[in-house]
Amino acid sequence: MEFTAQTIADFLQGKVEGNPDAKVSDVSKIEEGRPGTLCFLANPKYEKYLYTTEATIVIVNNDQKLAEPVKATLVRVPNAYESFASLLELYNSFQPQRKGIEQPSSVASSVQMGEDVYIGAFSYISENVKLGNNVKIYPQCYVGDNVVIGDNTTIFAGARIYHNCKIGANCTIHSGVVIGADGFGFAPQSAENNYKKIPQIGNVVIEDYVEIGSNSTIDRATMGSTYIRKGVKLDNLIHIAHNVEVGENTVMAAQAGIAGSTKIGRDCMFGGQVGIAPHVTIANGVKLGARSGVNNSLKKENEVLIGAPVQPFTDFMKCSAIFRRLPDMKRDLDLLKKKLEDK
Amino acid sequence: MEFTAQTIADFLQGKVEGNPDAKVSDVSKIEEGRPGTLCFLANPKYEKYLYTTEATIVIVNNDQKLAEPVKATLVRVPNAYESFASLLELYNSFQPQRKGIEQPSSVASSVQMGEDVYIGAFSYISENVKLGNNVKIYPQCYVGDNVVIGDNTTIFAGARIYHNCKIGANCTIHSGVVIGADGFGFAPQSAENNYKKIPQIGNVVIEDYVEIGSNSTIDRATMGSTYIRKGVKLDNLIHIAHNVEVGENTVMAAQAGIAGSTKIGRDCMFGGQVGIAPHVTIANGVKLGARSGVNNSLKKENEVLIGAPVQPFTDFMKCSAIFRRLPDMKRDLDLLKKKLEDK
Amino acid sequence: MEFTAQTIADFLQGKVEGNPDAKVSDVSKIEEGRPGTLCFLANPKYEKYLYTTEATIVIVNNDQKLAEPVKATLVRVPNAYESFASLLELYNSFQPQRKGIEQPSSVASSVQMGEDVYIGAFSYISENVKLGNNVKIYPQCYVGDNVVIGDNTTIFAGARIYHNCKIGANCTIHSGVVIGADGFGFAPQSAENNYKKIPQIGNVVIEDYVEIGSNSTIDRATMGSTYIRKGVKLDNLIHIAHNVEVGENTVMAAQAGIAGSTKIGRDCMFGGQVGIAPHVTIANGVKLGARSGVNNSLKKENEVLIGAPVQPFTDFMKCSAIFRRLPDMKRDLDLLKKKLEDK
Repeated sequence: MEFTAQTIADFLQGKVEGNPDAKVSDVSKIEEGRPGTLCFLANPKYEKYLYTTEATIVIVNNDQKLAEPVKATLVRVPNAYESFASLLELYNSFQPQRKGIEQPSSVASSVQMGEDVYIGAFSYISENVKLGNNVKIYPQCYVGDNVVIGDNTTIFAGARIYHNCKIGANCTIHSGVVIGADGFGFAPQSAENNYKKIPQIGNVVIEDYVEIGSNSTIDRATMGSTYIRKGVKLDNLIHIAHNVEVGENTVMAAQAGIAGSTKIGRDCMFGGQVGIAPHVTIANGVKLGARSGVNNSLKKENEVLIGAPVQPFTDFMKCSAIFRRLPDMKRDLDLLKKKLEDK
Repeated sequence: MEFTAQTIADFLQGKVEGNPDAKVSDVSKIEEGRPGTLCFLANPKYEKYLYTTEATIVIVNNDQKLAEPVKATLVRVPNAYESFASLLELYNSFQPQRKGIEQPSSVASSVQMGEDVYIGAFSYISENVKLGNNVKIYPQCYVGDNVVIGDNTTIFAGARIYHNCKIGANCTIHSGVVIGADGFGFAPQSAENNYKKIPQIGNVVIEDYVEIGSNSTIDRATMGSTYIRKGVKLDNLIHIAHNVEVGENTVMAAQAGIAGSTKIGRDCMFGGQVGIAPHVTIANGVKLGARSGVNNSLKKENEVLIGAPVQPFTDFMKCSAIFRRLPDMKRDLDLLKKKLEDK
Repeated sequence: MEFTAQTIADFLQGKVEGNPDAKVSDVSKIEEGRPGTLCFLANPKYEKYLYTTEATIVIVNNDQKLAEPVKATLVRVPNAYESFASLLELYNSFQPQRKGIEQPSSVASSVQMGEDVYIGAFSYISENVKLGNNVKIYPQCYVGDNVVIGDNTTIFAGARIYHNCKIGANCTIHSGVVIGADGFGFAPQSAENNYKKIPQIGNVVIEDYVEIGSNSTIDRATMGSTYIRKGVKLDNLIHIAHNVEVGENTVMAAQAGIAGSTKIGRDCMFGGQVGIAPHVTIANGVKLGARSGVNNSLKKENEVLIGAPVQPFTDFMKCSAIFRRLPDMKRDLDLLKKKLEDK
């Protein structure tokens, strides 16, 4: 598909500066712009590339000043970043949409489904599953008995959803995600030092507008539900244990792990590889730096913490800086001791 | 399915206190009890909920005193927790059991299988595989050539078992687990700074009563076997490298990683995100706190350690507490230095 | 298959010492040698096993002295380790090679493929995919639209490759790997504290001779490409975020995580569970110990670092040793303070 500068300007309600017939068929970053591509300039740090880019069209802010001649055709808009993002969405929406039930697939006769559902080949939809309108289930997915999936939710290839779990509307579940496997519950039997499995008969409830990254795992509750609230975004390879609750709009970067029965507030942000102990509570709006380790409840909202155990960010930076000078401190201390003993 | 208080009491050899015809069709936690559900009270901390719960039936210990009137029907038993757990198991055993070979699936003609085997659609069972009695292989699993799987073992949807691996009886392997992929072995070829793959021709041997959580990976040995001994329980997203041995009844929480050729004793317990170096030995009964990092062998049995590198638990707590006061210590030390220099 | 000592010696251009008709059908480690197996001795630490091993044939260096009588037949070669490795490769090459298109599989009519391609049952090859000669795609893989896979590359069971990604020649992708899922990009919308997804329209480019371990995830770029350069080896459960570049011949151990837009040089080596912040640059040849956490660019080539934040290896060892003596230091310091105040 090709678009002219004029078409783009019309769509964005912007103004062409240069050749209105300039054509693009792809997008690029301004610093890597190639002929035939469209890019944008929003961050002043990147202005220098405006004068050298090979991109054919650049979207810029209305007030962008030009310090040098520009080879590209410009499209001026009130907010270049937002305009570009809406073009990306448009571009994405042009991708072919999958529809229909591909064969072979296994769809139980008791499955109920809305309109415009896609079920890819080799997917397995078990008894009494309910699929909303426009649900897209890519190939090789497994959906267990009684699972409910809301409207407009997409499940990418090879995700697995165990029985009785519920997934809301407008969610995106990436490849390899496992939802609703048994929580890790074993009762020690002291006689033989071995363990008896505690049946995990709860489920996982995922609310609307949730996105879950590749190969993340969310375990079913022992009883009741593990909750992933509305608007939560989880990156790849994240572990959410049984009976955890993750509050609305909380965001976690890759490889974070949340142990059992912990309750995370809303609007939290966790960096990569964060670990949180079982049975603790994290207040709303808490931000944890990458690799933080939390072993107690954090009750103060909106704190910014890091470290293991966590402390306020600037304190941690100070302590870490001194940690690196511990050999000096030790030597100083030993010298002082000696001095005082010599007296 | 509905059960009356009398039926439950009869099954548990307990005694009804209240309405023997009270009916339940689900279970709940006492603090979240809803009408029509069954719950239990074992931990005295939760006694207050006994007087407020909406649950219809509560299982309590024989010696439970009642400080206030109770609305629910009680079933008294010697050990409320154990009785409830056995009911959960019963409940679980009522779940429909899958049997038979679903189509389409791919089962090589050389496969041998016992009685009551289930093979879900889209599963692939390669040449010379042996499946014991009552083995359940959910949809979309891959079982490589010559794999042996013991009686009563369940493999959930989308697990992969490479060729020549052995899995014992009464094991549970969750979705997305990969058993027997190549160990990470490469020989540096200094001329070009690149690496030559060392063929990994061993296998993985998993003994009886092992459970492995979703998306965990257990690599095959270079030669010989990677061993997961009897009764081991592994949580989700765990990595076990080639030639590792994990001893009997050892338990690891999610996202732990064990590097190559390391030998873990029996009855160990590792918290989440623990990491252990290659070629070390961990004694029996060692307990490692979450996020511990071990780079040397731990030879003393039953130690309780944490940190990276690890130290005894209480030492670590002390050191961590002082770490947070390092800026104070540094200031004190600098003051003392100045004082002494001034003299 | 059985081989005689003479056949092996001929293949390796070595010399038999003992029974040229001794037969082996498997390999073993010298310390675990069983009758009918072949092993090797290269490391002098293992010489003692030469005199006790039950293995039938042992490959030894030409200059290996014998301190005691040896029961096994020896094959003498210039370099026992290299000879053994080449036998392992030979052994591996005797494994049955899979060929042809198994049914049922889903291969779009627009797919182009070279010679000797294998596509396992239940694999799904989407529109316009190009597969080179000798590509092996095991069962239950998903290959999205427009994906290109080079000659001799093997994709093991249940790997997923999203649309538009490119994989080079001679690569090995293990089970459960997800390549090209959406990068983790969300724009905060401050009004409601929720997030708007930023479309991820780039791809992943994996060059030749790359190996990727089980259940690792490599996200597609927002725009442009996430690059895994020639000869990179990634272990299991590794996360590579969007727009990352991993340089040639860089090696990472399991559970490492690289955040978005970070650029890793060539010939780097990262231990397990390493974490690297977004938007940083790591110089060529940097070696990071297990569990290192990097939050800033590392500009000096070939440094050996560890810790979080990282520091030179020996410094870290010193600082860690003193960390464990912090309670002593604190007590000494408090004593000194008191002494000086008392004066």
